[in-house]
Amino acid sequence: MLSRNEAKYIQSLGHKKNRDNEGCFVAEGVKVVDELIQSGFAIRKIYALKKWAADNSDIKDVIEVDEAGLKRISNFETPNKVIAVFEKKKLRQSPDFNNKITLVLDGIQDPGNLGTIIRTADWFGIENIIASPDTADIYNAKVVQSTMGSIARVNMIYTDLDGFLYSNKIPVYGAMLDGEAVSAIKKTEECFVIIGNEGKGIRENIQPYIQKKISIPKIGNAESLNAAVATGIILYSLKIKI
Amino acid sequence: MLSRNEAKYIQSLGHKKNRDNEGCFVAEGVKVVDELIQSGFAIRKIYALKKWAADNSDIKDVIEVDEAGLKRISNFETPNKVIAVFEKKKLRQSPDFNNKITLVLDGIQDPGNLGTIIRTADWFGIENIIASPDTADIYNAKVVQSTMGSIARVNMIYTDLDGFLYSNKIPVYGAMLDGEAVSAIKKTEECFVIIGNEGKGIRENIQPYIQKKISIPKIGNAESLNAAVATGIILYSLKIKI
Repeated sequence: MLSRNEAKYIQSLGHKKNRDNEGCFVAEGVKVVDELIQSGFAIRKIYALKKWAADNSDIKDVIEVDEAGLKRISNFETPNKVIAVFEKKKLRQSPDFNNKITLVLDGIQDPGNLGTIIRTADWFGIENIIASPDTADIYNAKVVQSTMGSIARVNMIYTDLDGFLYSNKIPVYGAMLDGEAVSAIKKTEECFVIIGNEGKGIRENIQPYIQKKISIPKIGNAESLNAAVATGIILYSLKIKI
Repeated sequence: MLSRNEAKYIQSLGHKKNRDNEGCFVAEGVKVVDELIQSGFAIRKIYALKKWAADNSDIKDVIEVDEAGLKRISNFETPNKVIAVFEKKKLRQSPDFNNKITLVLDGIQDPGNLGTIIRTADWFGIENIIASPDTADIYNAKVVQSTMGSIARVNMIYTDLDGFLYSNKIPVYGAMLDGEAVSAIKKTEECFVIIGNEGKGIRENIQPYIQKKISIPKIGNAESLNAAVATGIILYSLKIKI
């Protein structure tokens, strides 16, 4: 049974401030919860339908709820079979950026876009993502959902990009509309790739750090590409292209 | 002023059945409404804040509403300055597929994904998209929103894929997890590219039409890529790669 206080507590984790204070976050759905358990996220509490609880009887801290209970605490219109509260992971604050491609996100504000970017980065073996403080929170329920488990494998660091880029000296590429065609750029093993805000692009105070502006060639008439699609094409082009 | 009947009517267009019966659809937001007007969609009625109406005084059929009125008819949590009812476009039912890359969507059900795919197709100059009947409706409000105006330029045809692929004889590529690396495939000017459902992939009865399975090489650990990101990478690779 789900107490009223528990329901309130879980709903309160919809706000970043409360997630930060409590050091935990909410994940929904069989696939995502499974992946986070597998990758070692510490479980605070799990709320699940009878069937899920029976299938996962080795897991402690499971509270059986009915569908109405699940609906009360879900962030989604169609709640899934299980909702879990996990402890946030301690992020590595000073990873090594040498011989790696690292994504730098400047104000990606749509949670779905951020989640899809994290999932795409994971596909291409990106270990670290640096994000400006106004980028969506990785522990937002919609971000967690759309990463499809990749949140467990990509290290995300929120920091002031100006200071960060000033003190890290590897090549900096910036995705812009007026850059060199990414298809004409050589494969690389070491760089920062900056992806800007969905509407406004890369902030002016960050642009001086860019050594190479890169663009995705356009054939048709769309004004811009979705930020996650652009990220996918750029990572593919820099890491895979023959 | 917005009458109660008008508000009801606009809300009713949230359902595909009503959009089909009425031959019209709803678009929200300054950018999307502007693009649809520019590209010649016939306006049935526009509901806008005073400022938008003043800035667009050359446009007929504008009804001034206040923010509360706009909120009543909006499909989104934060309604924009303008909501318009447009007539659907007559789609070209028998376009020419020779010397072109055409996208074929098999059950893309997420409206945001479909909108982003249409926008990406427009970026790469794709003229036609063929979609299975269970693909999300192009006139769904979230699809219209996430196409960012590209709905005006891409011709979308809903049809039975089995019959369609049987009667059109150009090369068929299918995006699958076990295909040949798309980076190893030559640029092409003429093919169908099938993109499958977000979770289930391409239906079994469609798979026999595939002449070449294509995949996006994976370096990391994500289980799959978002359908719109995958579409972007494949179109980039087939159309642009040097």
